[in-house]
Amino acid sequence: MPTQRELEEGETFAPRFDANGLIVCVTRDATDGQILMLAYMNKEALRLTIETGFAHYWSRSRQTLWRKGDASGQTQKVTEIRTDCDQDALLLTVEPGGDGGACHTGRRSCFYRKIALGRDSDRLVFD
Amino acid sequence: MPTQRELEEGETFAPRFDANGLIVCVTRDATDGQILMLAYMNKEALRLTIETGFAHYWSRSRQTLWRKGDASGQTQKVTEIRTDCDQDALLLTVEPGGDGGACHTGRRSCFYRKIALGRDSDRLVFD
Repeated sequence: MPTQRELEEGETFAPRFDANGLIVCVTRDATDGQILMLAYMNKEALRLTIETGFAHYWSRSRQTLWRKGDASGQTQKVTEIRTDCDQDALLLTVEPGGDGGACHTGRRSCFYRKIALGRDSDRLVFD
Repeated sequence: MPTQRELEEGETFAPRFDANGLIVCVTRDATDGQILMLAYMNKEALRLTIETGFAHYWSRSRQTLWRKGDASGQTQKVTEIRTDCDQDALLLTVEPGGDGGACHTGRRSCFYRKIALGRDSDRLVFD
């Protein structure tokens, strides 16, 4: 187990998977930095992502490993992977394939609704 | 429990907290969209964030609720909160106070290292 200093200031990638063996991953579009989605990787998904250059994730609902885009065509060619200070989160930068989107609902980003702050904070606004 | 369609296409904010009562939250800077950090909120942290307009998180390591910036001055005035398709993740847009940073290491973003893809994928590069 690395020390806090090794985790934060070290040059060794030592991703910290959680009790379920997963690490959270935020994915953004290389062209404009738009946040496309948030998902999880297990060790194998991360290994395949690094080795193949295409994003793989672990589906918590289906409990399966998947290569993003296999069904939808919305592949994600990885141009960069970052980790955060304590190495328990990843930030992927990708070039999306297919229609350029990432969300299974057909939208480009999964974050297609915002909270109606200051008015009705239990309401969502599409935009 | 909302249906999948209600979660994905509804106008009701129904955040899905995990087994530990937490929801993951990605935070970006309002000025340029830079990803600053990734953290977690419990129900109370989310409520306080919405009510006060300043980001509150739940620290998993310290097991405490904290108002971001109370110690560091790096407050986060919230300009937007988004949720994703299945409402188990949040995307905050904020105006950082203090020195404009978010990371306790002194850097602006927690994601200050990238994996040396294609060369030595267990090595991290600072940039």
